[in-house]
This record gives sequence, structure tokens and C-alpha cells, in this order.
Amino acid sequence: MLFFKNDYGQGCIPEILELLSKTNDESINGYGQDPYCKEAEELIRSKMPDSQVDVHFIAGGTLSNISMIKHLLRPFEAVIACDTGHIATHETGSIEATGHKVITVPNASGKLSASAIRKVYDDHMLQFEHMVFPKAVYISNATELGTVYTRKEIEEIRRVCDELNLYLMCDGARVGSALMSGVDYTLNDMARWFDLFSIGGTKNGALIGEAIIISNGMLKPYFRFVMKQSGAMLAKGWLLGLQFIGLFKNDAFYKIAKHQNELAQQIQVKALELGYPLFVKSETNQVFLVVNHNEYEYLKKRVEFEIWDYWNDDPVIRFVTSFHTSQEEVDYLIVYLEEAKEKEQVSDRL
Amino acid sequence: MLFFKNDYGQGCIPEILELLSKTNDESINGYGQDPYCKEAEELIRSKMPDSQVDVHFIAGGTLSNISMIKHLLRPFEAVIACDTGHIATHETGSIEATGHKVITVPNASGKLSASAIRKVYDDHMLQFEHMVFPKAVYISNATELGTVYTRKEIEEIRRVCDELNLYLMCDGARVGSALMSGVDYTLNDMARWFDLFSIGGTKNGALIGEAIIISNGMLKPYFRFVMKQSGAMLAKGWLLGLQFIGLFKNDAFYKIAKHQNELAQQIQVKALELGYPLFVKSETNQVFLVVNHNEYEYLKKRVEFEIWDYWNDDPVIRFVTSFHTSQEEVDYLIVYLEEAKEKEQVSDRL
Amino acid sequence: MLFFKNDYGQGCIPEILELLSKTNDESINGYGQDPYCKEAEELIRSKMPDSQVDVHFIAGGTLSNISMIKHLLRPFEAVIACDTGHIATHETGSIEATGHKVITVPNASGKLSASAIRKVYDDHMLQFEHMVFPKAVYISNATELGTVYTRKEIEEIRRVCDELNLYLMCDGARVGSALMSGVDYTLNDMARWFDLFSIGGTKNGALIGEAIIISNGMLKPYFRFVMKQSGAMLAKGWLLGLQFIGLFKNDAFYKIAKHQNELAQQIQVKALELGYPLFVKSETNQVFLVVNHNEYEYLKKRVEFEIWDYWNDDPVIRFVTSFHTSQEEVDYLIVYLEEAKEKEQVSDRL
Amino acid sequence: MLFFKNDYGQGCIPEILELLSKTNDESINGYGQDPYCKEAEELIRSKMPDSQVDVHFIAGGTLSNISMIKHLLRPFEAVIACDTGHIATHETGSIEATGHKVITVPNASGKLSASAIRKVYDDHMLQFEHMVFPKAVYISNATELGTVYTRKEIEEIRRVCDELNLYLMCDGARVGSALMSGVDYTLNDMARWFDLFSIGGTKNGALIGEAIIISNGMLKPYFRFVMKQSGAMLAKGWLLGLQFIGLFKNDAFYKIAKHQNELAQQIQVKALELGYPLFVKSETNQVFLVVNHNEYEYLKKRVEFEIWDYWNDDPVIRFVTSFHTSQEEVDYLIVYLEEAKEKEQVSDRL
Repeated sequence: MLFFKNDYGQGCIPEILELLSKTNDESINGYGQDPYCKEAEELIRSKMPDSQVDVHFIAGGTLSNISMIKHLLRPFEAVIACDTGHIATHETGSIEATGHKVITVPNASGKLSASAIRKVYDDHMLQFEHMVFPKAVYISNATELGTVYTRKEIEEIRRVCDELNLYLMCDGARVGSALMSGVDYTLNDMARWFDLFSIGGTKNGALIGEAIIISNGMLKPYFRFVMKQSGAMLAKGWLLGLQFIGLFKNDAFYKIAKHQNELAQQIQVKALELGYPLFVKSETNQVFLVVNHNEYEYLKKRVEFEIWDYWNDDPVIRFVTSFHTSQEEVDYLIVYLEEAKEKEQVSDRL
Repeated sequence: MLFFKNDYGQGCIPEILELLSKTNDESINGYGQDPYCKEAEELIRSKMPDSQVDVHFIAGGTLSNISMIKHLLRPFEAVIACDTGHIATHETGSIEATGHKVITVPNASGKLSASAIRKVYDDHMLQFEHMVFPKAVYISNATELGTVYTRKEIEEIRRVCDELNLYLMCDGARVGSALMSGVDYTLNDMARWFDLFSIGGTKNGALIGEAIIISNGMLKPYFRFVMKQSGAMLAKGWLLGLQFIGLFKNDAFYKIAKHQNELAQQIQVKALELGYPLFVKSETNQVFLVVNHNEYEYLKKRVEFEIWDYWNDDPVIRFVTSFHTSQEEVDYLIVYLEEAKEKEQVSDRL
Repeated sequence: MLFFKNDYGQGCIPEILELLSKTNDESINGYGQDPYCKEAEELIRSKMPDSQVDVHFIAGGTLSNISMIKHLLRPFEAVIACDTGHIATHETGSIEATGHKVITVPNASGKLSASAIRKVYDDHMLQFEHMVFPKAVYISNATELGTVYTRKEIEEIRRVCDELNLYLMCDGARVGSALMSGVDYTLNDMARWFDLFSIGGTKNGALIGEAIIISNGMLKPYFRFVMKQSGAMLAKGWLLGLQFIGLFKNDAFYKIAKHQNELAQQIQVKALELGYPLFVKSETNQVFLVVNHNEYEYLKKRVEFEIWDYWNDDPVIRFVTSFHTSQEEVDYLIVYLEEAKEKEQVSDRL
Repeated sequence: MLFFKNDYGQGCIPEILELLSKTNDESINGYGQDPYCKEAEELIRSKMPDSQVDVHFIAGGTLSNISMIKHLLRPFEAVIACDTGHIATHETGSIEATGHKVITVPNASGKLSASAIRKVYDDHMLQFEHMVFPKAVYISNATELGTVYTRKEIEEIRRVCDELNLYLMCDGARVGSALMSGVDYTLNDMARWFDLFSIGGTKNGALIGEAIIISNGMLKPYFRFVMKQSGAMLAKGWLLGLQFIGLFKNDAFYKIAKHQNELAQQIQVKALELGYPLFVKSETNQVFLVVNHNEYEYLKKRVEFEIWDYWNDDPVIRFVTSFHTSQEEVDYLIVYLEEAKEKEQVSDRL
């Protein structure tokens, strides 16, 4: 079976495995206060020379979002997200469990717009204390649908946030893929735009871990209290530091993301040529195709993937590439996509 | 100024005021464990002869919803409501503050449908533990838009809830108005349909207070713990018992609701005749009219009311009748509505 | 039966009942934004000429504590209280339900000391982010044991709070009794000392309601959001305003408290003379006596009171006086206390 | 510098590192639903043949406690722990952040007693809904002070829990050390005694991870929802499964615990001989010594350790052994302990 199920289905890049071995017998301080975490922090800081940021490491994406949002909001404040946002869908109400409403607005290709944010804000101000106070804006970049915000889109959102005095955060579980999708911005820009954001390791070649970047000076104090309370502070914290040394020392982070994107784009281009409708036009390492029942049956015997949604009655299937996906695997997948169509056309003709 | 701003803008019916005076010098047990609360409970129970219900009294509507939903749900469970539901809009995130997501679906004239509930449930089951578990259904009756569920609609919802093993609750802040709107069901039916629900006093002639009715035997134990923790247990609890004695002893509850509805319906009928578009066709004591800018300016100098929403750029204004509203006040309001239109037509002709 | 069970066992002073009647037919703005609440606010402000305070009205004591503490603390912050503090005992975990730990220290006659606060703070700083951050100090005045903080004690606590940058709050459910116990401070001092505090109406002659006083300017914004979310904002909010007009217009508040204290002190003095050991020496309207089994049996047939605790095996019983308690009732109680002792001595001699 | 600071200061046993390498290139299902987690579950189940348990894997100890307690309790319910319990001290209020009170009672050598539990329960029942409902009992075994519950102690606690209908849970962050301290019980007994408990990997030779064992059939459903909501479900979940394969395949878990205990006991025995007072008599891999200022200064230049507390003004220092500690390191530590004393005696004589 080919594996295109997700981008967190294999271990990690060899560099990280080596670091684990090399440091295994050292005695190291716990809770992220060790030289390896420091080194990783510096490597990440060096990518954001225009900002003074704090860097923390957290084991997973849901914990990162819990910690960031719990840190940002007062009890009656809420976070605005689009309805496909990870916090609004696939985190089992973890944000609400911290006491906060996620105000959702319909997405446009997985994205939130500046105008939607303004509308939410204006609507809430009319009723003032009878409604939650929208205080933070959550975007994912790359989005859950594989799309990427343009510089212009983010700058517009930032402007609205400045004007309305809202915090802007980014769930960067797949920010590597976003940055390597051809956009004209970098982590340095992100540190200027976002009050805080995450850089995902798990879906970008690491075994485990997200880096949290806090740019807004007002938000730097006490984040470790929030982490600890949320269970987001690892005893052997250097485990996470090592991941990000592995990812950032020789820019493996970017190379992996580029690799993932390129292979996924090959699949998307070919699928389009073959006549598979796209559910959404992805720019990164996830591809969403609408397939009919026969195609689905043909593919699922040969490839591991997920059903994302339904388009009328047809399954929308998702192929994801990872740091580990090879050109050969992509070539095989494309062959299967061709065969699924041919079989289709044959049966059409019969 | 005429007052049509809401149904909680005057004190209470004289019966309640008298009860307050009469009992003022008695020494009474606190926290709702007194003979007056018992009497009120029995009066309410007598309206639901087919069920064995527990009755509790709570000072306000938000506290009632907090207590009921906190009591119903486990941490990962969520409540389904329509997007106009009071818990989804005008309670400042109080449900999320108890840790629970409110899953919203678009309303149809302020109502939730059985099919929408089923769809939410099915969608969530696909992702299982990665999403919240929808476990309770919240409806308001009468709705926030003045509409009322039919027997058939509620029975369909109840069937879906039975099938999917969901709790069904009703926010009855205006349940008096619902029952007096001409429907073919009573509190006795409601006690059979709903696992728990509230009977609103505040908007139906009382000074303060909602009665919580728990029909589902599994939900009866420990509700007082939840009340106390939520700050929903009043020290001088008999204050609330007295309200419901006043409302139910001689069926004042129903008479008030009928009175409120009839006056509001006079306004609605006349407004339609005058050519005011309805934002929604109300069946109870709230009337929603779309007015243009000149009409709005004319009316707001003479009548207190609220802007509910905007229809394109035109304000949607809301008139609400209360236990205290008189026929005379309604007659005046109708005159003003006529004058606003006439002035309009004059200015059209000029 | 005589009633000495608590100070919230009868309705309210006649002034308040009259205000309710007089305003019953007026049409009034909801949610505490009405002329009566304004008037009550001004009356209360006039007692604190040296401070600029915000005043809000909340239906009950638990809701007041929930709202104040939720407003004060960030997620990882905690409130220090003594182990007899109301929030630590008889509020069913309502503070924890908002997500915050109540750090308890042993009480001394129901009071918290400056040195205990400093010790808690120092202990927590040693472990920093691995423990909660103590950020607020909660005292009750009068305390749950009827004792009262001296000016010197509060000033010492205030100094520690200033030094350690802690918020200081006071649960004033019985602050009237504290102020009328012979202390050399007033509400004006309290407004200078406390960042925020409550003035209890329910146990001081009102039907319902506590006033929340916010002195610290940083804490003034957004309190109404917290109130609304907590279910602490009453629709017919003027009901609470009227209570405090009734209490403060002619200083009924102080007269009631004085009356309550004097009657209770008569009981305490006489009980001591009769040889009843005091559980704690009360300075206000609660009296705590240790009685033996026979005394207990004798009294409980004649008087309604509560068992507060046990001293070895002997019940500690509590007598409380209220605005409504008469000299005659106190005289009767004293007779019963004498008879219980005499019967005792007779049986001793047999 | 010698390292005796904690038992989570080095990587992991070689078996685990090998498993990580060996599986690094496989494509594996996420979220703990993979063959390696299954294998680890079976290995653990095989240690508890008398019970039917569910096994889950969670990255850290705080997350484990959060998930277990959130799963156990309804909103108004609380957990009883002793005042040295990890949830009561060093988890930054994470249990309160889920809305629940931790009711603490004074510890006896780090332990909670059956009689203390009964007293808490009885005290709370007197006030019923005005206090939290104590519903779960939390013990740590080994305790935070290195002591271990006897079979008799646990059985007495279990009996009280059965009688009072309380859940009994165990924080097994150091359960390996407890089981290898010479007690007459095993994991098989623990599965019978505890409704749910954790088996700590992090402090027993693993890189990361705790296993959660659910014995009580009523508690098995929906635990994965709680995990996911709490951020306790790892995307690359097999990482945790591999840890427990490494620990349990050849009983490394027990060998490590035995090793840790034996080395620590050597230190404790020698320290006693040298005249260092014990803060508490440890039975496991933590040793707590009271040292004077000179001894402290001498040792801290040569050994990494933590100050645990103060005994009067003397520091209580903690030495902890880990899977990685060698006999040679222990020998060196003992030499330093001797030298610190000798230097002391020399200076005494001068």
C-alpha cells in the first residue's frame, strides 16, 4: 500500500535521530531550560532578525493552540476563526474547554478575510457586554485546505487587527509548506505580523514538537506558567529542542517543506489533467480530489488516504505528502490515478 | 414616551407584590427549602400530571441556561443550537465559560429542525474523538424571533434525540407566550418532551425568576450542587417561590401571556396593513418590522424600542409587549405607525 | 420557635418594600442601567469621598465572589484565603469552577494575617512556574466567625499586597456588621484599602443583593462583561438598585448593622456569664457557643439555630441576629439559655 | 559535576533508542491507533491478568493527571489528595483549571490515610450542596517523598472508597520504584485496587510517556475524547508505544526501578551513618537529607541536586537516582558526603 494519508505518518529526518543518539547519555536540565533548547531558540531567532522574540517548545498542535489562546484572552474574550480552522473543528472543543468561544465565519478556500473580521467585531460591539468580546484572530497558514495566505491578505488582516486592537495569531502546523509555496514572505515577516504563532515540526520532518514564537512584548511574561498548567511543558524538554536544531541547523525545515510541496503539486497537476475535479486548489502538500465511487474503490485498495468530505455523494479524498514521500511513490500514485480513470472510461464505453 | 422596548421593563403583577408584603415578617428557611417554594413547586407540578418532575427556582435566564447545560454535559460534550439561540448570542459566552462548545446551525425563522440536528450528529460521528460529541439539543420556545415550535416540529426533534440518545432542553424564557399562541400543546406535553426546561417568570409578569423543570429521572440528583456552584441558589430563595405562586395560583401566568400576545399581534396585523415589511412573522409578544430611515426617526422620538438588526441598510426594529402594556398604549403605537407612513407618503409626493 | 438561624431569614426593611411598590408601574431600562441604580451608586459613592469608585449590583454573594475573582485573575493565578473563608468552604467550588485555585492557610479566629500571605507568596516563588502564581488576597470582613479585622491588621495586609503586587479584595457580605462593631474605619477607608470589595445587602436588611465596589482604576473596564457571562446581571436590575437606595438613603444600612450587633452581643455576654464556652469571641451579629448534649436538646426544641461545628463531641451552635430580630426575642433566648443551664445544674446535683 | 538532580535528566535506555531507529522509515497510523501501541498495550495487559483494562499513552505526567481527573468528575465534584500530592503542588493549578477543587489533607510521610479520606467525606456531607462533593481519591505511589504505600494501607483506602462510593486513582509517575521497593504487591494488584492509574515511563528509563490504565469498566468509554480535548493525544502516537515496548518487553521497567532504588538506598544508608538527618525515610530512588550551610556549600560545588525544603534554616536537599546513574557516581557522591562531614568536624575542632 502507498501511504498518502497524512504528513505525520513516519518518524523523523535522520539528523534528528542522530541528535537523539548523540545526546542520550548526557545529563541535562529539564523543562526546556537546557542548552539544546537555547540553541534551537537561537537558530529560530536568527530567522527573524527584525524582531525580538521569545521561543518555547510544545509537544503538539492542540496543546500549542490551547496554550496560546489561554494566554491571550480574558474570560469574556473570544477568538475569531474561519469554520475550517483547526481550533473550530478537530480539537474536540479544547478552546471552549479553556472557557473561550471560537467565533466562526465561513471560509473562502480555507481562509479568513480582513472584512469578515471587521464584520464580526462590528456586530459584537453593537450588543457590547451581552456578547463575547472578539479579541483575537486565529488563522492557519498553510490552511487546513492546503491554501496559503498572500502577503496582501495577511497585511490587510494585520491592519484590521491594529485598528480594532485585536491580537493576531497563526497556527503554523504547516507553516513550512506555506513559506515554500512561492510566497514573497518569510518567518521574519511573520514575526512582525503576528503577536504570536507556532512553527510546526511534527508535519515537517520532526518526530514531535511545535515552536511557539511570541513577538508581542506584552505577551512574553508568564507564558511558561500557562504551558505548565496546560500540561504543555515536557520534563525532558530538550527532546523538543533537538527536533528544532535538526530542522533549522541546515535549513532542513525549508528543504522538507519544498520537497513535500513539489511532490503534492505533481499529483495535483496530473490529477487535473486526468479530469479529477479539485475540491480546492491546493498550493502546498495536501491535495483534495473529488472521485466517484468506482475510482474510490479502485484507489483505496492501493493507497492509504483519507476521505475529507463529500461533494454531493462523491467522496472528496485527500492525499498528503511528507518529508518521507519519494518521487517513486508519487509516480506510482499517478499511475493508479490514471488506471482508476481508464477503468472508468472503459466501463463508460461498455 | 411609549415603552415597547422589552418585556422586562416593569415590576410585577400586583399578586406578587402582595405576597412579598404579606410574608415580609415571617422567618423562613433559606436556599429554596421553604414552604413557599414547595407550594410553587406543587402548583407547577399540577400542570404536568403525566410526569414526575423536579422543580427548582433560579434568579435569571443566563444562570438557568448555565446551570442546565453544566448539569447535562461531560467535558467533551457539546450542545446544538440554532444561530439565533440565546446561548449562542446574547449570553457573553457563558456556556463556553463552563467549558462547552455551542454547535450552531443556521436558523429557519428562529427555529432548529430535526434534520439539522441529525446532520450535525452525523458529521461529528465521522471524526469521532477529534471533534466534540454533540450530546444535547437546545431550543428556545417561543424563539428569540417570536416564533413558536409546532407540536409536529418538537415531536420530530424529540424522535431524533431519542434515536441519537441526545438530551433535549428548552429555554422557556418566553414559554408562556409560546403556549398561549394557539398551539395544541401544554406544559404537560413539554414535561414529556424535554429532559429539562425552564419556565420564564421575568418576561411573563414576575419581578425575577425562572423555574427549572427536570423530567428525566437520571438528571434529578445533584442539580442543587450545580446551582450552588453556579451562584444560582438564592439565600432568600422564597422570593422566587413567591413569584411562581403569584403566577400559577390563579393562572395569571397564562392570562399575562395571552394578553401580551394579543396586543403584539394587533401591532403586527396593523403594521402589515400599513405596508411595513415583517422581518419575521411573529406569533407571540415580539414584533419585528423593517422601517426606513424616516420612519425610524419619526418613531424613535415617540416610542422606546430596540434596533434588532439591519435589512440591507434599513433598521429592523422590535416592539415587545409585556404584562403591563395596555390597549391604550398599543392604540397610540398604531397611530404613530400610521403617522410615520403618512409622513412618508406625503414626502414621496412632494 | 425563636429564629436565630441566620441573618437572611426574613424579607426586608419596610423602606425597600415601599420602593418596590412605588416603582412597580414605571417602565425602566434593564440590566442595571437605570436611574435607580444610578441613585444607589451615588449614595454609595458619597460614603467614599476619597476614592473614585465604580459600583455594580449583583444578586448574591457567591455570584459576587465568582465575578470579582474571575475578573481579577489570569488562568494560572490563584487567590489566597484562610481556611474558613467563604470561597474556600461554602461555595461548592465555585472559584475552582472558574479555573482558579484557592490557596488556603489556617485561620486565626477567622482571620488571615499579613505574615501568612507573605509566606504563601515566598513559598510559591521558589518553584515559580511549577506552582500557581498567588495574585489576589481574599478576606471576609466581618469574618465567617463573627470577628472583625482591625485597622492595623488590614493596613498590614495592604502593605504586603502593595509590596508583592497582589490584589486585595474583601467579601463584605457582613461588612455592615464589621463597620458597626466599634472599629475606627469606614467605607471610605475600605475603598482606599481594597482593590475591589462587596457590600452585602442580603444579610443586612435587604431582600436581595450585594454592591460591588471597584476602586482600582485598572479593574474598572469590562466588569460588566464578566457579570453578564457569570449570569450576574439581572434583567430587572433596578430591583437591586432599590435595595441599596433603601439601605443607604437614611443610613438604614448602619442602623440595622448596629441593631444586629447589639442584640448578638447581649446574647454573647449573657452566655459567657452563664458559663457557656465561646467557640470564638464574636464582635458582630453571630454568636458561637459550645453546648453539651442536654443543653443542645433543650434549646433545639425552642430555638431554630445551626450546628456550626463540633468541639470534641459537643456541638458548637450558632445564633445569628438579623434586621428583624427584636429585643423580646433576645430576652426569650436568654431565658432559654438560663433554663438549659439550670436544668443542667439540677441534673448535676441529682 | 555529579548529577543527582532528578530522574528525568538523561535520554532513555538503549532498547528504546533502537526501536526509534528501526521504525523510523515505516508508515504508521497516527493518534495511538497503530500496531506498536497495540503491542505495548498487550505487554502491559499481560502484567494484570486478573483485570480487563484499557491502556492509553500520554506524553507527560501533568497531562495524565488532567485527563484522568477531568474524565472522572462532574463539575461540582472534587478530588481528595494529601498536601504533598503532585496535583496539589507542582502542576500550576492544572486540576483547578479543569474546574475542580483539590481537597488537601495533611500528609503523613507523603501519604494519605483511609481515615483522613473518611473525615473529609463526612465533613462535606454535613453541608451537602453548599460544599463540593468529594468523589475521587488521588494518591501517588511512590509518593513525592519517596515513600511507598503498604498493601494494608491501600486496601484500607480501597475499602473506604468502596463504602463511600469514591473513585480511587493512583499517580504512578514513580510506580516502578514503588513496586521494586520490596512491597508484596504487583501491577496486577494495582489494576484491581485502582479505578484508573498511570504507569510512569519518563522517570523510569523512557524518553517520554505515561501509560494510563483504566480498570473500571464504567470509565472506559470516551477517554480518548478527553485525551484529545486536553491535547494529550500525540499525532505520532507510536512514539509512546515504542517507549513501553522498550520498558516492558524484557522487563527493563522493573530492572531500572530496582537499579534506581538500590543506588538511592546506598546513599541513604551511608548518609545516616555519617550523621545526616533524614527529612523523611525514603524507600525508593529519592533521598532527602537535612544539611547545614557549610555542608550545602561543599556539596553544591560538586553535585547537581535540588533544595526541596527548609528544616528550620537548614536546607533539605534531594538526591535522585535514575536509570542512568552508575555505581561509580554513587561512590563519588558518598565520598563527597564524607568530606562535607569531615570538613565540618575539623572546623568544629578549630
